[in-house]
Amino acid sequence: MTYHTPVRDMVFTLNHMAGFTALEKSGAYEDLNRELVEAVLGECAKLADDVFAPLNRQGDVIGAALEKGEVTTPPGFANAYQAYVEGGWNSLAFPTEYGGQGLPQSLALSVFDAFCGGCLGLSMGFSLTTGAVKALLAHGSPQQKEIFLPKLVSGEWTGTMNLTEPQAGSDLSDMRTKAEPIGDGRYKISGNKIFISYGEHDMAENICHLVLARLPDAPEGTRGISMFLVPKFHVGADGVLGERNDITCTGIEHKMGQHGSPTCSLSFGDKGECIGTLIGKPHEGLKNMFVMMNAARIDVGMQSVSVAERALQMALQWAGERQQGRSFGVKTGPQIAIIGHPDVRRMLYLMKANTMASRGLCYATMVAWDLAHVAEDEAARKAAKEREELLTPLAKAWSSDRANETTSLGVQIHGGMGFVEETGAAQNMRDVRICAIYEGTNGIQAIDLVGRKLGMGKGKLVYDFLDDIRANASALKSANKQNLQMMAAAILSAADEVEKTTKWMVEAMGQNPEDGLAGASAYQEQLGDLAGGHFLAKGALAAAQQIDQGADDYLQSNIAIADFYTRTCLGRVQSLSSAITAGSEALPQIKPEFFIG
Amino acid sequence: MTYHTPVRDMVFTLNHMAGFTALEKSGAYEDLNRELVEAVLGECAKLADDVFAPLNRQGDVIGAALEKGEVTTPPGFANAYQAYVEGGWNSLAFPTEYGGQGLPQSLALSVFDAFCGGCLGLSMGFSLTTGAVKALLAHGSPQQKEIFLPKLVSGEWTGTMNLTEPQAGSDLSDMRTKAEPIGDGRYKISGNKIFISYGEHDMAENICHLVLARLPDAPEGTRGISMFLVPKFHVGADGVLGERNDITCTGIEHKMGQHGSPTCSLSFGDKGECIGTLIGKPHEGLKNMFVMMNAARIDVGMQSVSVAERALQMALQWAGERQQGRSFGVKTGPQIAIIGHPDVRRMLYLMKANTMASRGLCYATMVAWDLAHVAEDEAARKAAKEREELLTPLAKAWSSDRANETTSLGVQIHGGMGFVEETGAAQNMRDVRICAIYEGTNGIQAIDLVGRKLGMGKGKLVYDFLDDIRANASALKSANKQNLQMMAAAILSAADEVEKTTKWMVEAMGQNPEDGLAGASAYQEQLGDLAGGHFLAKGALAAAQQIDQGADDYLQSNIAIADFYTRTCLGRVQSLSSAITAGSEALPQIKPEFFIG
Repeated sequence: MTYHTPVRDMVFTLNHMAGFTALEKSGAYEDLNRELVEAVLGECAKLADDVFAPLNRQGDVIGAALEKGEVTTPPGFANAYQAYVEGGWNSLAFPTEYGGQGLPQSLALSVFDAFCGGCLGLSMGFSLTTGAVKALLAHGSPQQKEIFLPKLVSGEWTGTMNLTEPQAGSDLSDMRTKAEPIGDGRYKISGNKIFISYGEHDMAENICHLVLARLPDAPEGTRGISMFLVPKFHVGADGVLGERNDITCTGIEHKMGQHGSPTCSLSFGDKGECIGTLIGKPHEGLKNMFVMMNAARIDVGMQSVSVAERALQMALQWAGERQQGRSFGVKTGPQIAIIGHPDVRRMLYLMKANTMASRGLCYATMVAWDLAHVAEDEAARKAAKEREELLTPLAKAWSSDRANETTSLGVQIHGGMGFVEETGAAQNMRDVRICAIYEGTNGIQAIDLVGRKLGMGKGKLVYDFLDDIRANASALKSANKQNLQMMAAAILSAADEVEKTTKWMVEAMGQNPEDGLAGASAYQEQLGDLAGGHFLAKGALAAAQQIDQGADDYLQSNIAIADFYTRTCLGRVQSLSSAITAGSEALPQIKPEFFIG
Repeated sequence: MTYHTPVRDMVFTLNHMAGFTALEKSGAYEDLNRELVEAVLGECAKLADDVFAPLNRQGDVIGAALEKGEVTTPPGFANAYQAYVEGGWNSLAFPTEYGGQGLPQSLALSVFDAFCGGCLGLSMGFSLTTGAVKALLAHGSPQQKEIFLPKLVSGEWTGTMNLTEPQAGSDLSDMRTKAEPIGDGRYKISGNKIFISYGEHDMAENICHLVLARLPDAPEGTRGISMFLVPKFHVGADGVLGERNDITCTGIEHKMGQHGSPTCSLSFGDKGECIGTLIGKPHEGLKNMFVMMNAARIDVGMQSVSVAERALQMALQWAGERQQGRSFGVKTGPQIAIIGHPDVRRMLYLMKANTMASRGLCYATMVAWDLAHVAEDEAARKAAKEREELLTPLAKAWSSDRANETTSLGVQIHGGMGFVEETGAAQNMRDVRICAIYEGTNGIQAIDLVGRKLGMGKGKLVYDFLDDIRANASALKSANKQNLQMMAAAILSAADEVEKTTKWMVEAMGQNPEDGLAGASAYQEQLGDLAGGHFLAKGALAAAQQIDQGADDYLQSNIAIADFYTRTCLGRVQSLSSAITAGSEALPQIKPEFFIG
């Protein structure tokens, strides 16, 4: 199967769902316009389709390997990565003073979308690099920036995120890795980290580990964690590589999916000679790491969408080619392609609706991120920042939940061949499964949503979003088309439902958080379901407005997809309310003997 | 992790959800009583827990292997199978005249439940054997029965189902395998079959393939298919094994899961010397194979439940041991086991509710199968047969859909370790994925449901089921407990909703089947959601009645699980109605250029 970067959908989503045009109009980006965006995406599509995509299957079959502390990535990965670096793709959205191209992060996200669709196992690597750049830009010292940023911006060196330890995963408060000052502004690092994506590999000449560790005087808990820059090879003040640092890759995980991406266990300071430098202020490491973490969460949402897109394309191709069965009641004559069966078409529509809706959500989150930095006035920047904060857990969790569903549908459409590895349908399902887990499980996203995000202004962030949702639905309602009016009515009704559960949730989190937390995941799903419908409806409205100027199949298809979603998926919003408000009395403490019969 | 056969749940489910007591009272089974059932399940639990369960992981890691046409099953499989045969487990529910023990099929199903929970990859093998016995009992000639049944009943020989060919999967009408009479009542078989579970292996001395093929004068389509018995080794009239038949295993599939179970491609008659005998009448093969297929569908539902049970047990153990985080708002002090977090508890409740509800559904389907054979009067047998017909697609499809959800939740609860293969959580998800596909995809089950099953008396089978559901709910309503009354109200309301969609569906399938088929999967899910709630509510009612005679934590837990399901899952019933009735206009024919952006 040939993966095809969906440039047309990407451009449509940026412009008509995610509000990218506000960035073009902002004047903050020189030369940014529609033609440039299409040119950028068209160009990256070539690399994604021709170079990345063919590596996806062998990345799975061969996988990354560890021997004597050295990790070998699957054949072709290093060359493809080189092409990515040379094409300037890593530097797209970074400041020009460090060699970047100063374009919006949301454009870089759509480029990331293309590469992840081509080969997730490979693209996983540079998600961490761009995250490291963001953390250094925000918190690095002038010297750290000068030495490391040009190489990380270009992608010549890669970055990692070192948080997890065996006893410290979702909760980092019990982290044990230590950093001791050695007097010259440098620190000796010692400890063990696990689950470090691309913690060791053969694709770049240096790896810059961003490592969370405790200083000797650190207070307990998460307020005693500092962030360090710990390179694989020492780097002189002149930027020249020196000796190897005392970091050992002690293992790589045998995982359900993403076999091409090495997930490393790293041991720092086995010989007592691992040296790093402090990033930002002491004890502020976790807070500062969240610059990287929030970016990573949006990236994970994006990865989910990209793999779902790949699954959709494979299923669509299969459904158009596989001849099986006849229309209902027809006993003779040639078999038909299975796309002709209503239930197969239903699955394809669901895959497409999930993918478009979650792409809209992820892009919109990153456009908000950009606007939070470049919008003209303070109020607009604040509003954008709030929107980014609200949408980030949804982009991460709802997109990955939908991608798990979508990739599983991809297997289902392939029938028995979906369970056989050679079609690749199963790989999509296996690869994407981690997206609901890493960078904070979806349950943790839900806690962030009902705790921190609803806590900001007692639900204000949601109510502001509901205002936008209703404004768009009202515009749909005034369109002179019955299907758009039905869509508007369904969305307005869903928005009312979400308003009710939001009020309940804000109150519950204030009075008895256990009640709120019992319904947090269901609330997150409900808000995501509404958001997904909203972004599809935005696209449908834009399509309808353009169609008035002349019919177009592609634009019609965007209306059909939104229509399908509204009729068959949006009903979940109402049905989730009882789960949201059931409270903790629906979840009595479990005695194990209750559950093991 | 140690798998524990949930004997207590199994007995509870048989007696209080599935109506097994009617079989005890029927007098059709000598000596059948509560003590015997508990003794049988207790005994099979030892084999499942101590011998089968330890093989599950290495079955996955090592897998089945093919070399020079010979299949080697993973280490330990052959010995465990031998123990299964020697224990008499295969013969439990077969007629005593062929060496069986004459017990109910529903009891055999609960025994199968135990073994699949221990090791699905191994248990997959004898599901086909028992299916072959059922087909031979119904349609075999006296000589076929005399020679083959004793060996297949005991399990000394195994059976297979040979339907699928590369161009004939979900639709068998284009099947090409041929059978030519050679004059002595025997036939030369030639053709290629794929996806044959345990089509070749090293666990038994002979394999009896039930093969669908066409006679020379066969009409086109499914009405021209005949069934043949084609043994791996020829068998003399005296039952003694002779020469090897001309059957070659040409490949085994590299699958997403169930690595221990060899999925074979078989070539019949490469040398023109493959010999078989006709089972039943010419051209009636597909109809007769459905005896086997219907049994296999219930078995697949059961497999799903068993793997879900295994996933639940693993998740429960992990959640009780893994220390991570603190209660909301608590910053210091020791971490707590993650089972203390409401969202983790929610996932465990959902896993448990799914598992218990679908176990109730599968057992009830097989109890109906038994009653259709042994109930005292003709009317009762007819009613039971109709119930079995209605519940079979639900048992297969709803149970496997729920098991896909449940095993994925099992991965989620394990966090990052769930994606790492060594915990085994991922294996459950991979192993069970095929259950929504094989023996008729869940989409095909939905067509069977809204086509054939709703067609019987224009929805009569559903309306009869709704009568039972309402009767149970009414009994719950009259209980003097608020939570039971709420449960009853929710179920009655869901039943009303299903009555409406059933009417719509019966009409749609009569007038415009494409409209009905567009909503068939959603209808199947809706009816399954209600059925699941009904079986849990039956359990809750029985538990409440017994609690009146003295409190019991286990009985309380059954009420809590039903309560959880009613509050948080049953709402789906209402939300699915719009998807069911959206009709084919929500699924416009897809032009590929619509969907590839």
